[in-house]
Amino acid sequence: MEQTLTLLVLDLVGCFVFALSGGLMAVRKELDIFGVIVLACVTGLGGGFLRDMAIGATPVAALSDWRYLVVPMTAGLLTFFFHPALGRLEPLVNVFDALGLGLFVIAGAVKALDFGLSPLAAAVMGLATGVGGGALRDVLAGRVPIILRRSVFYAIPAFAGASVAAFGLYAALPASLAMAAAFIVCSGWRLLAMWRHWEAPLPRGSASV
Amino acid sequence: MEQTLTLLVLDLVGCFVFALSGGLMAVRKELDIFGVIVLACVTGLGGGFLRDMAIGATPVAALSDWRYLVVPMTAGLLTFFFHPALGRLEPLVNVFDALGLGLFVIAGAVKALDFGLSPLAAAVMGLATGVGGGALRDVLAGRVPIILRRSVFYAIPAFAGASVAAFGLYAALPASLAMAAAFIVCSGWRLLAMWRHWEAPLPRGSASV
Amino acid sequence: MEQTLTLLVLDLVGCFVFALSGGLMAVRKELDIFGVIVLACVTGLGGGFLRDMAIGATPVAALSDWRYLVVPMTAGLLTFFFHPALGRLEPLVNVFDALGLGLFVIAGAVKALDFGLSPLAAAVMGLATGVGGGALRDVLAGRVPIILRRSVFYAIPAFAGASVAAFGLYAALPASLAMAAAFIVCSGWRLLAMWRHWEAPLPRGSASV
Repeated sequence: MEQTLTLLVLDLVGCFVFALSGGLMAVRKELDIFGVIVLACVTGLGGGFLRDMAIGATPVAALSDWRYLVVPMTAGLLTFFFHPALGRLEPLVNVFDALGLGLFVIAGAVKALDFGLSPLAAAVMGLATGVGGGALRDVLAGRVPIILRRSVFYAIPAFAGASVAAFGLYAALPASLAMAAAFIVCSGWRLLAMWRHWEAPLPRGSASV
Repeated sequence: MEQTLTLLVLDLVGCFVFALSGGLMAVRKELDIFGVIVLACVTGLGGGFLRDMAIGATPVAALSDWRYLVVPMTAGLLTFFFHPALGRLEPLVNVFDALGLGLFVIAGAVKALDFGLSPLAAAVMGLATGVGGGALRDVLAGRVPIILRRSVFYAIPAFAGASVAAFGLYAALPASLAMAAAFIVCSGWRLLAMWRHWEAPLPRGSASV
Repeated sequence: MEQTLTLLVLDLVGCFVFALSGGLMAVRKELDIFGVIVLACVTGLGGGFLRDMAIGATPVAALSDWRYLVVPMTAGLLTFFFHPALGRLEPLVNVFDALGLGLFVIAGAVKALDFGLSPLAAAVMGLATGVGGGALRDVLAGRVPIILRRSVFYAIPAFAGASVAAFGLYAALPASLAMAAAFIVCSGWRLLAMWRHWEAPLPRGSASV
């Protein structure tokens, strides 16, 4: 029970941080107050929505627990009123974003396994949970999703972490060990990639295709 | 039973009007005849699709009742052949759009409550039902969704109306009273906002972020 | 049983070919290796995802059978490493794409009928299965979906083929006859339209609206 509570708190923290990133994007697009709140909610909740609709966990979690709605709404309101301060805190926001990514991919993989999916499918659902909200945010804002463009920062660590969680739990590793390893792989990689400016291979001669 | 029939007719009217707006957007993007029909259907049915997939009401309503498919297809065909006349009728179309928004948010909130969601979640689903189709229309047409940009006209009245319906019914108000109040709040606000050119607050200094 | 296996193989071939088209688009957008794989998977699996979420066939098929994940991942990897050769083979890829479209609309219509949908709704789901992945690919790549713009090539043959399959099976035609006719209508039309450069009617004076 205590573990469930811990997971819930971590999930809500991830949701809050992701919602901040959506709110900041909305401010940059000069959306008005409700547009900021809506984009914050879509970013914070979109990944879990996609996962729950795909695995059939309906009504989706965000609609079954009021905290999943209130947290990103609050993040959107905070972004609207305090975005200059948040902009200055962007390095900190990025760190939280990396931590949020780790939490989301684990939560996604665990839930997918609970619904009877294979470890590979659970890893894909962990990836979708971690990057789905940001992809929706970018599509709504009219940009090619950053998860497609900067995969070393998002998609690769998300899939790696989700795979560690999914295959680790499937192989009956102790849950806390599998989750801790997954979190370190995903969020650690994401932080290292930011810090060291890693880049993923591009297709040969892609610019000339 | 009679009330159900009334709701169905109102829902189909809303679907028809929303489909017209999708068809007009398609004509402006110079899509061909089938593109016009498809965008009309996506706009008329998208909100309900999202709601039904999120709450687990599958197969979604639009697939369970042929009238939900025939109505927006007809609207698309009419737009294709008579769009110059429809363009001249745009003020009238906007009024119908405002009425359709009211009908959709109520239908969405009521259905979500029926599926056991909390009033807050039902209000969010009412919002999604009302603005989801238009958001899909805009994303497919390559625009930032108008619900993010002009929230005083769409998102705020939609959420206000959906909240009145959801919390009113949850509080066991007479259904007809709660729905009438919700309709007046949503569609009345939308019409007033159009008529008086209301605007929602923008973030401070957002242009310079 | 053998028929089911045949259908599965054909479905996977369609998935592979669609994933190639997504991978090629990703290479053109200069996405990195993981971006190519993700866009390939979204294109190959997106239509079936949409269909299964809409009809309530959850967890969606792509998550219940590992081959549906491995096939488009492989297609994405192949595109990443061999895209210059694939680019030269584009006419051949287009032919496979036409065949894949026929397979997908039939698979979509058949599954929708199995879930108790009406023939019209099943035809719409066949259409969604056939064109959904490409629509997601285009939206993620920041383009108006080609299914809206070039409907003679995609949406019309897809809907025609899906209708033949759905109404044929509903009318208790022999399954192999209904499916063969649907395949010829859809893929044959698509190939003819490519070969003869067909165009669908545009709205009158749409450019000046």
